[in-house]
Amino acid sequence: MKMMKLPEKTVERLSIYRRTLLDCLAQGKTHIFSHELANLHNITAVQVRRDIMFIGYSSMQRKGYDVKELIDVIGGIIDSEARQNVAIIGIGNLGRAITTYFMGKRSKLNIVAAFDLDPNKIDRMVSGVKCYSMQNIEEVVKEKDISIAILTVPADSAAGTTERLVQAGIRGILNFTTVPLNVPSSVHLEEYDMITSLEKVAYFVKKQAG
Amino acid sequence: MKMMKLPEKTVERLSIYRRTLLDCLAQGKTHIFSHELANLHNITAVQVRRDIMFIGYSSMQRKGYDVKELIDVIGGIIDSEARQNVAIIGIGNLGRAITTYFMGKRSKLNIVAAFDLDPNKIDRMVSGVKCYSMQNIEEVVKEKDISIAILTVPADSAAGTTERLVQAGIRGILNFTTVPLNVPSSVHLEEYDMITSLEKVAYFVKKQAG
Repeated sequence: MKMMKLPEKTVERLSIYRRTLLDCLAQGKTHIFSHELANLHNITAVQVRRDIMFIGYSSMQRKGYDVKELIDVIGGIIDSEARQNVAIIGIGNLGRAITTYFMGKRSKLNIVAAFDLDPNKIDRMVSGVKCYSMQNIEEVVKEKDISIAILTVPADSAAGTTERLVQAGIRGILNFTTVPLNVPSSVHLEEYDMITSLEKVAYFVKKQAG
Repeated sequence: MKMMKLPEKTVERLSIYRRTLLDCLAQGKTHIFSHELANLHNITAVQVRRDIMFIGYSSMQRKGYDVKELIDVIGGIIDSEARQNVAIIGIGNLGRAITTYFMGKRSKLNIVAAFDLDPNKIDRMVSGVKCYSMQNIEEVVKEKDISIAILTVPADSAAGTTERLVQAGIRGILNFTTVPLNVPSSVHLEEYDMITSLEKVAYFVKKQAG
């Protein structure tokens, strides 16, 4: 099915629904109602139904959505038909944790390379991924057809590294550093800011106490 | 200044502005215009001015916002006056990375304890934090006055651990597991889903290519 580009928030919710549906499937659940999916994510059943209708799928009234079918439909929309190759830039503590976390979670997204400055890591396998020298970013990105970068370098090298990634032809960046990045509009940037998430929790905890 | 509860998105943006302002300060920049802050975050200058007006601060027309003052004003709004104690639940690869990342980043938010099942970690310091047995969650949370938990346990123990955290009196949870959690409305839950972030990047990269 060829579709127009979905809004960011819809893609986000579809990804989240699928994650939950995969959990349901693993637990042997074959059908799920929109209000069940909604409850699991603190959104309304109307929103769930609207999202799923939007991608052209409907439920059986008495049984709810077929879990397996819906997983496939969502995959057909948000996954690429081809594999998409991912590199992890900076494979320290955080880089290793992320790599371990992602490995094998989605069949179409593959972490195929890591980059680091540390000579003890270069040319070795780190958390199951071959590590290359930062100096070779451009050539390895081209050689391995990498389109997505997960950025976990120290803050002071975030901007410079990003510039090189963009020049090497990277088209999507997931930024785990605390530095806001400037990229051309042709590159999709997703900020992943842990400090902000923690500060939000802290704010609402404080407000509830007050 | 005593204020009503701000919307989630406003808190998020204020936290992000402060992060950028701290970077500016470190680089010796004393003033910043709303459009500069806006450009750094891909939002509109109108949104920035509205947020900052909303918290009762204004700029000097010719020079922009005073960076140091604005950092203090934002801190006065979103930070707690008292310290807020944080525990990290599960101190594996990801837990250690997160702990290292957060340490010392905000003076009012302290990671004061880690919890794990591994006997090799219990009663030792891990990434600078004392590690306790999961069996003692309830008593350590009370003893150390911990109100916020960062959850990085394996998926299959996420639900059970969350139940115990809530019963122990935890009032905010930052969830790094892939499992959606159910908490009472008195507990603030922030989901931090890396798979969804990566899938969003992958989707928009695919769409740009097509």
